[in-house]
Amino acid sequence: MPEFLKLVPPQQAVEQFLAAMPDPTPETISLETQFAEGRVLAETFHAPHPLPPFTRSSVDGFAVRAADTFGASPSLPAYLTIAGEIEMGKQAALAIQPGQAALVHTGGMIPTGANAVVMLEDTQTIRAGEVEVHKPAADGENILREGEDVATGEELFSYGTLLRPQEIGGLIAYGYTQIRVYRNPTVGILSSGDEIVPPGYEPGPGQVRDINSYTLGAMLRLHGADPRVYGIVHDSFDELESAVRRAFTENDMILITAGSSVSTRDITADVIDSLGSPGVLFHGLALRPGKPTILALAEGKPVIGLPGNPVSAIVSAGLCVLPVLRKLRGLGQVSFKAAVQATLSQNIPSIAGREDYLPVRLEHGSEGITAVPVFGRSNLIFTLVRADGLVRIPAAVTGLTGGSPVDVILFS
Amino acid sequence: MPEFLKLVPPQQAVEQFLAAMPDPTPETISLETQFAEGRVLAETFHAPHPLPPFTRSSVDGFAVRAADTFGASPSLPAYLTIAGEIEMGKQAALAIQPGQAALVHTGGMIPTGANAVVMLEDTQTIRAGEVEVHKPAADGENILREGEDVATGEELFSYGTLLRPQEIGGLIAYGYTQIRVYRNPTVGILSSGDEIVPPGYEPGPGQVRDINSYTLGAMLRLHGADPRVYGIVHDSFDELESAVRRAFTENDMILITAGSSVSTRDITADVIDSLGSPGVLFHGLALRPGKPTILALAEGKPVIGLPGNPVSAIVSAGLCVLPVLRKLRGLGQVSFKAAVQATLSQNIPSIAGREDYLPVRLEHGSEGITAVPVFGRSNLIFTLVRADGLVRIPAAVTGLTGGSPVDVILFS
Repeated sequence: MPEFLKLVPPQQAVEQFLAAMPDPTPETISLETQFAEGRVLAETFHAPHPLPPFTRSSVDGFAVRAADTFGASPSLPAYLTIAGEIEMGKQAALAIQPGQAALVHTGGMIPTGANAVVMLEDTQTIRAGEVEVHKPAADGENILREGEDVATGEELFSYGTLLRPQEIGGLIAYGYTQIRVYRNPTVGILSSGDEIVPPGYEPGPGQVRDINSYTLGAMLRLHGADPRVYGIVHDSFDELESAVRRAFTENDMILITAGSSVSTRDITADVIDSLGSPGVLFHGLALRPGKPTILALAEGKPVIGLPGNPVSAIVSAGLCVLPVLRKLRGLGQVSFKAAVQATLSQNIPSIAGREDYLPVRLEHGSEGITAVPVFGRSNLIFTLVRADGLVRIPAAVTGLTGGSPVDVILFS
Repeated sequence: MPEFLKLVPPQQAVEQFLAAMPDPTPETISLETQFAEGRVLAETFHAPHPLPPFTRSSVDGFAVRAADTFGASPSLPAYLTIAGEIEMGKQAALAIQPGQAALVHTGGMIPTGANAVVMLEDTQTIRAGEVEVHKPAADGENILREGEDVATGEELFSYGTLLRPQEIGGLIAYGYTQIRVYRNPTVGILSSGDEIVPPGYEPGPGQVRDINSYTLGAMLRLHGADPRVYGIVHDSFDELESAVRRAFTENDMILITAGSSVSTRDITADVIDSLGSPGVLFHGLALRPGKPTILALAEGKPVIGLPGNPVSAIVSAGLCVLPVLRKLRGLGQVSFKAAVQATLSQNIPSIAGREDYLPVRLEHGSEGITAVPVFGRSNLIFTLVRADGLVRIPAAVTGLTGGSPVDVILFS
């Protein structure tokens, strides 16, 4: 049996675990940029040219020399000769001489000589070839200068960046249509326990279907991993050890959900500890649900033992597995967690020294949003099916009072 | 030209638009449940049997008749005969007679006759075949009754449910390994504008690469749509009309990002209005960035015109396209939006009567989280690359004061 360490709060355990984990060196793959959303960039890009690549108008109007519009007003317009129109998508074919203006569209190139654009609504064209300007333009007004957004040589993106739609756009703006991203980490998932049967199997008396492999698989896929379900292993050290070792060899991380009997849990912990050094770093967390979580490292590879109870497995995976997955993906940790602010509907007791996560349903009412606890003594999966998110009750607190404000972290 | 309606706030326009949209009748496809996360269920399920399917123990301990433990304490234990051990995953093979107990593991079946479980730590076995109980057990203590989570016939899931990991688990708990889900809506995306060139093309003077098709495509894929990029169409009514009509016929919704010149925008609006009735419902929203948004319905199909500016296109798509996509997917609207609470770093002016969305970067400091506006006069895509999310400045407000609390909606 591994050494049992004191129960530590989940955040602290995860921080220490991440610090003990070696920096990953994920393989990279080449991907079309347009399909790379949700991937992690494996290259660093510097701007080969400025953005905008040319000085352009931000409005529809007339490109002018600002000095020519000095003091212009509706009663005393500046009269300028129209030198022509700037065609979209073409080099500005003319130059503005003093006393001249050129019609320009939003995004059109500012012609040589001009240094401002007067908006169309501040002008009037009465005679052909001439425009009345009713408002003075300052130098640079309504103009986007070349390089204003990005200067040449500026770092555009660095490796380790999560690609959101805007990063896809930024890469494509520079013509990077094919990029290198990290391969999604593979995660082997095993279930142990003699009472567990596969989903397609009709459970006999005392048996339950394996659902953890699939809730965890879905969760992992939603967070950028490539899960592989290895199925159910029976309660024997040798059988479990050989299945776990195979999954361990074939993946970047493995998750084992332990059956609920003591002997299965013990065997699981022993097998995890046998995989390699340093072995089990945390066995049990000051967390509910999710206490029987095991965090281990074997030859630098994360091996996480999760509770067999499906709700505990999901809560513990959210707190422990997802941060480890981010590290494996080459991403930094999340510093900001979005939450819905709500009012708790009733008192909730909690034990000091243990972090509690309470599933809640959100309800709109005249008083705003209420968080209603979803109780389920049995703590089966339907507790979470009925919930919108979780409320964290910190370890230092002995409960929450009905009517107090709470932050609800929504399930993704 | 379509009739220009008054500029309305985006939420109001979207609500009216959704009300005008017919209820979708999405096609369904069959999918393996384990790979269905993020899909929308197209069937309704009622429980064919209770969950838990049998009465089971929630702890490791001894199954007893509660009455036999009445008054038990460490100094005055109740002595019970051990009738045997309940094997995991098997029918409980014995029945508990008065004065008897059976060893049971967490999740194990409660044998006939027993109505409570005494936790292992509240017992002691000194003589073989006998257990000392040190604590009385109440009727039902540490027992999960058959059907406590779900009763037979109860509705488990209804069509229109978004499948999260827990729903996958709930379906599999009942052995539903293959389910019907809605096909993801297809969305045709077109770009208009003579200055726009494809991503792989080297832009000439005055030209810019098409990035909106790809930022929007990525955004749509992340939200359960199947986007199809139709490419760039030049500024001619006939050319645009024929391309748009083809995309309109082939998809559940179409998006057209207009080029930035007035003539392109006019042609785009005219083409959208020509597709069918009722045509353009909203042309221009009280929104910045994103004002030149067009919301149209043609023969019941949504056709949305988005601004050519990439930041405006993303903001407007987030507010207008995603709710429409939810309806097309057969989902209800989101009632709760998770946000990060932060303190605004500086004063931000805003015009009353218009909803402003301000890109911000989040910074951790000793005082908590600060939202720092990301300015970009040019409003190019890199403004959003540098931002973590958006702060909404309501229409009734003329600006936000530095130091005031703001809700930041993170980009997904």
